[in-house]
Amino acid sequence: MSRTIPASTPLGDDFHVYDTTLRDGAQREGISYSVADKLAVARLLDSLGVGFIEGGWPGALPKDTEFFHRAAAGELDLQHAALVAFGSTRRAGTAAVDDPQVRALLDSGAPVVTLVAKADRRHIERALRTDPAENCAMVADTVRHLVGAGRRVFVDAEHFFDGYAHDPDTALRVLDAAVTAGADVAVLCDTNGGQLPLQLARTVEEVIARTGFRIGIHCQDDTSCAVANSVAAVQAGASHVQCTANGYGERAGNADLFAVLGNLATKLDMPVLPEGGLRETTRVAHALAEIANIGPDAHQAYVGQSAFAHKAGLHASAIKVDPELYNHIDPERVGNGMRVLVTEMAGRASLELKGAELGVDLAGSPDAITAAVRRVKELEARGWSFEAADASLELLLRREKAEADGTGQLPVPFELESYRVVLDHRSDGEVVAEATVKVHVTGQRVIATAEGNGPVNALDAALREALVPHLPWLGDVELADYKVRILADAAGTDAVTRVLVESRDGAEEWTTVGVHGNIVEASWLALCDALAYKAAARSAVGSSRAR
Amino acid sequence: MSRTIPASTPLGDDFHVYDTTLRDGAQREGISYSVADKLAVARLLDSLGVGFIEGGWPGALPKDTEFFHRAAAGELDLQHAALVAFGSTRRAGTAAVDDPQVRALLDSGAPVVTLVAKADRRHIERALRTDPAENCAMVADTVRHLVGAGRRVFVDAEHFFDGYAHDPDTALRVLDAAVTAGADVAVLCDTNGGQLPLQLARTVEEVIARTGFRIGIHCQDDTSCAVANSVAAVQAGASHVQCTANGYGERAGNADLFAVLGNLATKLDMPVLPEGGLRETTRVAHALAEIANIGPDAHQAYVGQSAFAHKAGLHASAIKVDPELYNHIDPERVGNGMRVLVTEMAGRASLELKGAELGVDLAGSPDAITAAVRRVKELEARGWSFEAADASLELLLRREKAEADGTGQLPVPFELESYRVVLDHRSDGEVVAEATVKVHVTGQRVIATAEGNGPVNALDAALREALVPHLPWLGDVELADYKVRILADAAGTDAVTRVLVESRDGAEEWTTVGVHGNIVEASWLALCDALAYKAAARSAVGSSRAR
Repeated sequence: MSRTIPASTPLGDDFHVYDTTLRDGAQREGISYSVADKLAVARLLDSLGVGFIEGGWPGALPKDTEFFHRAAAGELDLQHAALVAFGSTRRAGTAAVDDPQVRALLDSGAPVVTLVAKADRRHIERALRTDPAENCAMVADTVRHLVGAGRRVFVDAEHFFDGYAHDPDTALRVLDAAVTAGADVAVLCDTNGGQLPLQLARTVEEVIARTGFRIGIHCQDDTSCAVANSVAAVQAGASHVQCTANGYGERAGNADLFAVLGNLATKLDMPVLPEGGLRETTRVAHALAEIANIGPDAHQAYVGQSAFAHKAGLHASAIKVDPELYNHIDPERVGNGMRVLVTEMAGRASLELKGAELGVDLAGSPDAITAAVRRVKELEARGWSFEAADASLELLLRREKAEADGTGQLPVPFELESYRVVLDHRSDGEVVAEATVKVHVTGQRVIATAEGNGPVNALDAALREALVPHLPWLGDVELADYKVRILADAAGTDAVTRVLVESRDGAEEWTTVGVHGNIVEASWLALCDALAYKAAARSAVGSSRAR
Repeated sequence: MSRTIPASTPLGDDFHVYDTTLRDGAQREGISYSVADKLAVARLLDSLGVGFIEGGWPGALPKDTEFFHRAAAGELDLQHAALVAFGSTRRAGTAAVDDPQVRALLDSGAPVVTLVAKADRRHIERALRTDPAENCAMVADTVRHLVGAGRRVFVDAEHFFDGYAHDPDTALRVLDAAVTAGADVAVLCDTNGGQLPLQLARTVEEVIARTGFRIGIHCQDDTSCAVANSVAAVQAGASHVQCTANGYGERAGNADLFAVLGNLATKLDMPVLPEGGLRETTRVAHALAEIANIGPDAHQAYVGQSAFAHKAGLHASAIKVDPELYNHIDPERVGNGMRVLVTEMAGRASLELKGAELGVDLAGSPDAITAAVRRVKELEARGWSFEAADASLELLLRREKAEADGTGQLPVPFELESYRVVLDHRSDGEVVAEATVKVHVTGQRVIATAEGNGPVNALDAALREALVPHLPWLGDVELADYKVRILADAAGTDAVTRVLVESRDGAEEWTTVGVHGNIVEASWLALCDALAYKAAARSAVGSSRAR
């Protein structure tokens, strides 16, 4: 279970890791990839070392047609993966050679084509409005035409499992038509996602025994079993598995590529990625979430920020003894890390452990720990959360330690006198934001005003305007990310607002938190913490590691 | 597969649906239940009809002690479920009767107690620092003591699967000690969540064959297989399944109660809930997310808002023919519904279908459909999203239809001249927000000023101040929820902000969307749409159904 993939393993063609993030994944609600996004996604997947990247449906979606065009024009230089064009078989009663949609697949220039074919008699008759014989002819003609043109062809047998349960012969005849005409892999698709692992594995075994074909698997997550179904199918003999990054896909989504890879590599010791690929999965998963503009799922298996995070006081203290007793794998195998969470549930042990992680040694300061635990509980009761704001927590711990050790105050970069933000929606329709801050810095009173495209942006600009001339090091600090969470939803705009601000300079990134009924004040508190953290980091050794 | 649960089924004690949302679920990062929250969660779970509700760890967590106290004092009147107190066995080298932690379990007044016991030799020796014999004695003494005091006892065998693989005899001896001393169920826990369904099912079968004990299952989601593992264990003979609502739990979480119930009830036809319970799962899942203050996962199996949502143009048109061909179950069985999504991927078909769903008949207005598709694409390219804002979409469709049919403009409740919002952080530390709006309503120019605890709240208050005297019906409209999403994270506060506003009056709730670089203007746009929607709804028949 704990062997890493041997460097010598030739991945070859024996097992296919097939990604369809750019086609089936793009059907997820809220995802809308630009062509540039699609190119970036393909490059990230290739860097991981997947075998096949399904780029889209040329001819059906203009964006996808352009993606393949630009890929062929040299914008996509794949090191590991083969690019795949997805499309459907010729229409009923036409010839493949005359079908513009089939021509678009050839024009895409993709070396591999995956055709979708209906394998459920009810879909053939009621949705496609034709008969099983013509359906098989559509598959055979189209496969033969594409293979004849030098393409490698896979066939997705849509609704296979429902169809096989309803009318096995019709379903198997579709696979036979595809493979006999030259398709390399017959992919069994649980299109409606209704399968469970034990019976799905039995069906896959049965189909392999009856046909001897090379079988692939494509699972949807409607029973929350897509990952389990994919792995069970592989254990049952499937040698081609179709997944999407982070499980993106229609309805409940598809099988998550990263969980499937993690399971195959770490539980079944399969060499699914080139040497080093597995360690990139966490980084790639998060980068792909960024491109999809979907917040990464902190609780995602293997790659989630919390996948190896421990909260309960009981665990936290035991983890000191033996981390491997509490993690199902070494997080580093997938490029993830173990985290200790500070919450009202956490005891002194986890806060001390967290302090050590942040470079604040509390071992000798029991009073500081007591005070910090009390302070964290107080703030969390008012809506603060330090789980994602290590810099604010580090400041809190340093302040309590300085207090308890009598080493005095932490450096405070400036004192606020007041600020004012004015937002105007003028009668000419223009919207302007302007902020004025009055601060005391290096012994002087400074007033500065700046405009911004929003209240927080204006306030941030005014604050920099006021401080940078007096604190030049502040010039390198910039806002990297800004997140807003409304707490206690029921209360509408009366709710408390929690703001997370991620800052960076050349050397590191750090996250601070602010909570207030007023979103601008909450943002202000987080901005102030961000600067205070930087000031403290500059004055303290060993605390300026990247977070 | 499609039979519904027979009304006559006596649930009895043959199969246990055991919920641990309030104990193991509360370990999820970000969850912090108040005692009132815990009582509300227990009532919702009971209304669903689960058999057992694990309320927490009395004696270890003050909140949990208070929860059991208030439950016993009559604040929790359970109709179906038995309340369970969770705790650990007596400490090594003590007597159960003298262990304050064990006494707290009895003092909780819960009729059922679940004890956690270590079943992995490495944990016994390295974390518990004792030997297998004393570990078994701790289990046996504590079970005997609690059973002697009239409690029903279950035992959670922690890290069972890892322990059984490492040293089966030690693991089985713990089960034996528990059952011999009077425990009803030996629960096999995949505490580190490293299992896959096929081997987990084999282990469960083997343990049942070797012991003949009543076996339960508790799965964590670290391989993304918790639901599949739980169902596979039940198929292998386990008759007690421990889950958490929405899969809340530490790290990757636990097995999601709603997916497990959906699978057992609809795929295996097991009578897991009282008649009618299954139809409540979607409602209860969302209510529990509200209490946990975690946004519901739209892509959650069975109960997610998108679990039966169809996006692809291809599907959307075929769905008109035969919905049941595209859903793995009838969504109404779990109290969910099918949705058609409007996105740039959607064709005319889905927009027309969506219009029908919203009560806007576009069948006869091809020009309106063309214009609406173009408008939706434009807006979505600028960051708008109508997937969660049906009211804004309905307005858009009505406007395009009115335009195309030449039936003129929709009623506009008012015209904005200008607004100004001033936020002051005063030198005395007080933070105040004040808004002034200048509007034209029912032919008059009105100026109104109001304060609020934040910019949007102040603006909302000023707008009502100005309009309600002239549009009395507006008095019933209130803000129910307010959500903020920062798009294009990388740009920090320069990013575009998308605001969703949920409004309600006595009769219905509706959601509108606004997008702008300035969060206040984005909120303003969503507020205006909310009022325009209400005005249009009042003037149009058949459009005021609840969303």
